[in-house]
Amino acid sequence: MDAKPEMSAALRIRKESHLDLVLAGAGIVPATRNGFDAFCFEHCALPELDLADIDLSTEWLGKPLSVPLLISSMTGGALRAERINHHLAEAAEALRIPFGVGSQRVSLEGESDSGLTHRLRDLMPSVPLLSNIGAAQLIDAKGIDVARRAVETIRADALIVHLNPLQEALQPEGDTNWRGILPAIEQLVLALGAPVVVKEVGAGLSPSVARRLADAGVAAVDVAGSGGTSWAAIEAARGATERQRAIAQPFADWGLPTPQAIASVRAALPNIFVIGSGGIRNGVDAAKAIRLGADLVGQAAGILGPALDSTEAVIEAYGVTIEQLRISCFCAGAGDLQALRQVPLLPANGVFAS
Amino acid sequence: MDAKPEMSAALRIRKESHLDLVLAGAGIVPATRNGFDAFCFEHCALPELDLADIDLSTEWLGKPLSVPLLISSMTGGALRAERINHHLAEAAEALRIPFGVGSQRVSLEGESDSGLTHRLRDLMPSVPLLSNIGAAQLIDAKGIDVARRAVETIRADALIVHLNPLQEALQPEGDTNWRGILPAIEQLVLALGAPVVVKEVGAGLSPSVARRLADAGVAAVDVAGSGGTSWAAIEAARGATERQRAIAQPFADWGLPTPQAIASVRAALPNIFVIGSGGIRNGVDAAKAIRLGADLVGQAAGILGPALDSTEAVIEAYGVTIEQLRISCFCAGAGDLQALRQVPLLPANGVFAS
Amino acid sequence: MDAKPEMSAALRIRKESHLDLVLAGAGIVPATRNGFDAFCFEHCALPELDLADIDLSTEWLGKPLSVPLLISSMTGGALRAERINHHLAEAAEALRIPFGVGSQRVSLEGESDSGLTHRLRDLMPSVPLLSNIGAAQLIDAKGIDVARRAVETIRADALIVHLNPLQEALQPEGDTNWRGILPAIEQLVLALGAPVVVKEVGAGLSPSVARRLADAGVAAVDVAGSGGTSWAAIEAARGATERQRAIAQPFADWGLPTPQAIASVRAALPNIFVIGSGGIRNGVDAAKAIRLGADLVGQAAGILGPALDSTEAVIEAYGVTIEQLRISCFCAGAGDLQALRQVPLLPANGVFAS
Amino acid sequence: MDAKPEMSAALRIRKESHLDLVLAGAGIVPATRNGFDAFCFEHCALPELDLADIDLSTEWLGKPLSVPLLISSMTGGALRAERINHHLAEAAEALRIPFGVGSQRVSLEGESDSGLTHRLRDLMPSVPLLSNIGAAQLIDAKGIDVARRAVETIRADALIVHLNPLQEALQPEGDTNWRGILPAIEQLVLALGAPVVVKEVGAGLSPSVARRLADAGVAAVDVAGSGGTSWAAIEAARGATERQRAIAQPFADWGLPTPQAIASVRAALPNIFVIGSGGIRNGVDAAKAIRLGADLVGQAAGILGPALDSTEAVIEAYGVTIEQLRISCFCAGAGDLQALRQVPLLPANGVFAS
Ligand SMILES: Cc1cc2nc3c(=O)[nH]c(=O)nc-3n(C[C@H](O)[C@H](O)[C@H](O)COP(=O)(O)O)c2cc1C
Ligand SMILES: Cc1cc2nc3c(=O)[nH]c(=O)nc-3n(C[C@H](O)[C@H](O)[C@H](O)COP(=O)(O)O)c2cc1C
Ligand SMILES: Cc1cc2nc3c(=O)[nH]c(=O)nc-3n(C[C@H](O)[C@H](O)[C@H](O)COP(=O)(O)O)c2cc1C
Ligand SMILES: Cc1cc2nc3c(=O)[nH]c(=O)nc-3n(C[C@H](O)[C@H](O)[C@H](O)COP(=O)(O)O)c2cc1C
Repeated sequence: MDAKPEMSAALRIRKESHLDLVLAGAGIVPATRNGFDAFCFEHCALPELDLADIDLSTEWLGKPLSVPLLISSMTGGALRAERINHHLAEAAEALRIPFGVGSQRVSLEGESDSGLTHRLRDLMPSVPLLSNIGAAQLIDAKGIDVARRAVETIRADALIVHLNPLQEALQPEGDTNWRGILPAIEQLVLALGAPVVVKEVGAGLSPSVARRLADAGVAAVDVAGSGGTSWAAIEAARGATERQRAIAQPFADWGLPTPQAIASVRAALPNIFVIGSGGIRNGVDAAKAIRLGADLVGQAAGILGPALDSTEAVIEAYGVTIEQLRISCFCAGAGDLQALRQVPLLPANGVFAS
Repeated sequence: MDAKPEMSAALRIRKESHLDLVLAGAGIVPATRNGFDAFCFEHCALPELDLADIDLSTEWLGKPLSVPLLISSMTGGALRAERINHHLAEAAEALRIPFGVGSQRVSLEGESDSGLTHRLRDLMPSVPLLSNIGAAQLIDAKGIDVARRAVETIRADALIVHLNPLQEALQPEGDTNWRGILPAIEQLVLALGAPVVVKEVGAGLSPSVARRLADAGVAAVDVAGSGGTSWAAIEAARGATERQRAIAQPFADWGLPTPQAIASVRAALPNIFVIGSGGIRNGVDAAKAIRLGADLVGQAAGILGPALDSTEAVIEAYGVTIEQLRISCFCAGAGDLQALRQVPLLPANGVFAS
Repeated sequence: MDAKPEMSAALRIRKESHLDLVLAGAGIVPATRNGFDAFCFEHCALPELDLADIDLSTEWLGKPLSVPLLISSMTGGALRAERINHHLAEAAEALRIPFGVGSQRVSLEGESDSGLTHRLRDLMPSVPLLSNIGAAQLIDAKGIDVARRAVETIRADALIVHLNPLQEALQPEGDTNWRGILPAIEQLVLALGAPVVVKEVGAGLSPSVARRLADAGVAAVDVAGSGGTSWAAIEAARGATERQRAIAQPFADWGLPTPQAIASVRAALPNIFVIGSGGIRNGVDAAKAIRLGADLVGQAAGILGPALDSTEAVIEAYGVTIEQLRISCFCAGAGDLQALRQVPLLPANGVFAS
Repeated sequence: MDAKPEMSAALRIRKESHLDLVLAGAGIVPATRNGFDAFCFEHCALPELDLADIDLSTEWLGKPLSVPLLISSMTGGALRAERINHHLAEAAEALRIPFGVGSQRVSLEGESDSGLTHRLRDLMPSVPLLSNIGAAQLIDAKGIDVARRAVETIRADALIVHLNPLQEALQPEGDTNWRGILPAIEQLVLALGAPVVVKEVGAGLSPSVARRLADAGVAAVDVAGSGGTSWAAIEAARGATERQRAIAQPFADWGLPTPQAIASVRAALPNIFVIGSGGIRNGVDAAKAIRLGADLVGQAAGILGPALDSTEAVIEAYGVTIEQLRISCFCAGAGDLQALRQVPLLPANGVFAS
């Protein structure tokens, strides 16, 4: 997700155009691919609940959350990043949900801070704030040092390390040497002094990768599966060269669909903290993600528009999602998240058996 | 399905516009979702029957019916409700089928009687007439009293209580405290002195809900499943605010498809009286509903147009449905409803196995 | 398929318009429904055959046939029937395939002979000619007499009795008393002195109906399944009244798909002579029908256009079909019909199992 | 794939138009049929590999190859064939991949050499060059002689014999006597003194055909399955006569889909050298073909455009494919071809099982 220092001017411009593409929906492959439509809840016509009493509260990193939602990491061009981060931090505090900033590489390299400073934390004193660096940075000699600075600069509660091999492979100057990343994560866990979370960026974590990460001691994994933002689709639409676009095109639908990733990671690792993200469109999808095993549910592309706009717009967008999640619980007959994880799921358009 | 008293003027106007939306088909999600198309009858080229002798007669609530069909409950704006109810009652008598009126809440609160008076019964002396209230009204202190008045006002044979948690949750001032509804239904069954029927309004009754209702002593359940009118789709098209529309949108396909609901409720409760409704488009669908386990088959949206028009239009519409049901029996080789329940069903576009 | 005598003028006009609708394709529901596309042959890249030597010959009713094809029964309006029958008879002789005439009811009642006279036989001395009456005519007091005259009038090799309960039920003055038809067929078999074949007209014979017919002694069955001409689709497009059209509409896809009908009848009755028809579009479909168990394969709607045109047009159309059938055998590695019945079938778009 | 000598002028013109049709995409049936979309790799977010170190090298016919790709055999009209062959040979050398020339029949018959001479080998000294003749030529008295000359003329490393019964059957003057072809191949293997490879041309080799070929001693098979170029589709679009077009049309989707052909041939014959071709669109498809069991992956239609253009265009096109193949390995966590054959495959849009 990062620019090499020497390229940063050009790449910063490219990142601006990436934001525009994401906003225009270019990163999303057709909606029919979204795996969340393949199954549904069994409607409960007799909830025996008061909608107003449904308890969505949870906690993470020792802090209480009002709902099991998360603002997923997004870097942006420097021009807009500061505004976006400001709005998202204020909204996170108001909503009482965690906020993960985008990659801090550029800002740590001193080019532009994008608002990723001590002041960000002042906007959100009571909810988890998460740092973000790319896995490829870790294998640098100064990897742990960078990670520590990422956390300290914004006084974060934890550090997110993103795994994005496909994205790096499709980018002209991507970091494509991934040898030693797992040991580096192991080292980081021991050395950092703050919890480490590992995520993908839209191609999904498989159960076997999740298991290796759990064995390395990470505190949580975010599956960040396919079905939402596809960096390959974005590269295919607007790579720097014809050749780059051609290379990216058949990877537009590469990846583990989010529902499958959540369910299979949960099945493999019953006790790990799982964040479900990638293609979450609304609170019904969020409810399904939780039902399949997610502890928190993240969204990135879907809130970029509101984030550019204002703090209130982000709060309003999450307000809709929260209400949908609450109604999903109500109509599935689940009074809290624990109950939601037990309700029946049915195949959509399920083959009828007489 | 009801307006809070203090809101009734505004809501009455909204109900008028709901009727217009239903008439325009806005409540129906695309036809491909209709679960009835997933299976078909095995054609019988040698029926050994006289089409004229096919016996569709049945009985309900102690009264003989000519065919196993039901006019499902519909409230309308006060402006048109009286006309609709008049036409439907006359047609029910002529056709010898039961008629369930729409929610009586507004009329019981004295705002406008919508034709829901003693005179309605005079139009249909020999067939079952069913009252209608919402489940949320029951948990009011005066719940049983309201239920009793609903039955008495129109001299009904039975009372229908509708369960509509999703609809209430999506409406701005919906009744969303559903605690105590099951005990209230149990009380009602004991106290009312008339049979109690419980239905959904388009999201379906699951087998577990149906079992709880059966244990509470209800005389019949109407699954009112998904595949036909979707109140969420209507709210998504025309909620009062942008926010309401956004919240409703992902619920447009929420619910148990009618065929699945009928079959699974029947499997769970072999002896309960089951009404199959939700998305019935014609007499072939009706035949399939009966084959899957329905005792009666109801239609709402499909007859709203004729109901607004005239008594004759309703009779004509049902005439077509009845002829289709009769021909379905003939070509399935079934001489009566009992036989229809035994004929083979096949998957449509069934995977071919050589 | 027949007109009541007193209605014959009006109905003859209607039959003319039916021909026009069939020619315009109105009787065919969308091609995706055709069950023949669901499976395919395993290609044999090493046939070890000479295409020129592939032996498609067979025999029926004691007469040798060059290919296992049949011209299926079609009535037409009197205006064009004579021409059609003349062309088809000449083509049958030239092609050395059997020809089944359309219903002889109108011509036997003396209204118009449609070319269904002794002279027809003169055009096709060496191949089977089949008479045709409707099953409903058989239960008339004079049923067997009519059947006998149908055979004698054209000096037929056998009599086809068509079962068309759906078609009769959808027609305004259809024969809808089907009691006693099976015993009447049993009687006919004993009394007629010529083989009796029983067919549907596009809704399919199920295995249980086929078994009853076999027990009654019929010489062959023609499944005439769904996927091709649908009389309900024609009625829905152009019934006499709005009401008739509305009634017919949901029956447009009623029926047993031809491939399923052939395979299940063959499985139930390994030794009966089976004709596969209904929706055969070309020689690849014909090869599939034979592979599934058909002894002969019939086409109706697909040759109506050529039949109206000329004898040569019919020969040309069959020439294409025969060549396709021959190439199908070649590329399936089958040197004759016996071998074709043994080759592997695969699901089309078969789910890939790694 | 060949012209009878006496027809060669007319047929050469037809071949020119075939090239134009292939270039215009007329040979490809809609993309949805491509079986490669039905399954996908499990994404590996932690490859523990350096993209730069991924080893795609392999060897064939005793020569090292940089990647497991092959330029598949294509004849062209004489006007353009020489240019095409020149470009492809130069590109093969530069890319270090094998190149199979199109059918040598016309050139061996002395009409026009199409650049298929000793000089071709000079352009590609270090990589395998493959001759090409049709199986039907082998059963000629001079069959083995022709085969020997085909190899010698271009100093090939091996001879490809193509099996194309469907194509021959659909062509006006096709060779349709396929008796004795298998024994002729057996003879050829013994007599030729160079390895013999057998391929289809877009309809696929089944496991049973592959087994017969293996028993006959062939060195490798190329499944050349359906999903890419369809000669029937081309004939249907532009056969010489209306009749030819009509005959060809239902064969447009005839054949074994390439992924199925590869997987089933590999399962049947664990040790044979398998080339996977037919509908390969990019390096992700190529990776899937290898995963299913292919040793090399071939493309024809997809490189015709670049081949007409220039050597550089062919190199550029393969460069994209190779990069995609490399990234597929990287993101599947496979460091070489051996590892790629072990990674998990998942159904695309896999039914979700909760
Ligand atoms: C504009 C944009 C920028 C992103 N930048 C980062 C990043 O810097 N670090 C990171 O871990 N993920 C990044 N992501 C990935 C998201 O966190 C998320 O995993 C992915 O987009 C899938 O979620 P979605 O479908 O809701 O967008 C970014 C996503 C977007 C849309
Ligand atoms: C305009 C309209 C008003 C309705 N009002 C009521 C009502 O007051 N009470 C009730 O129990 N159901 C009501 N329903 C729900 C129907 O009775 C029925 O359960 C549902 O619409 C599914 O049937 P359908 O798909 O045939 O419309 C209403 C439906 C419509 C279309
Ligand atoms: C115009 C037309 C008239 C027909 N008339 C008769 C008839 O008189 N008797 C009969 O047994 N079948 C009749 N059929 C039915 C056909 O014989 C055949 O069973 C049916 O059309 C299915 O074949 P197809 O899909 O190839 O048309 C007729 C079909 C057509 C299209
Ligand atoms: C223009 C063209 C000419 C071809 N000529 C030959 C040929 O002469 N010999 C042969 O074995 N295959 C020939 N083929 C078949 C290809 O080698 C290949 O098996 C087939 O096209 C499937 O691959 P594709 O889908 O990548 O095109 C030809 C294909 C094309 C497109």
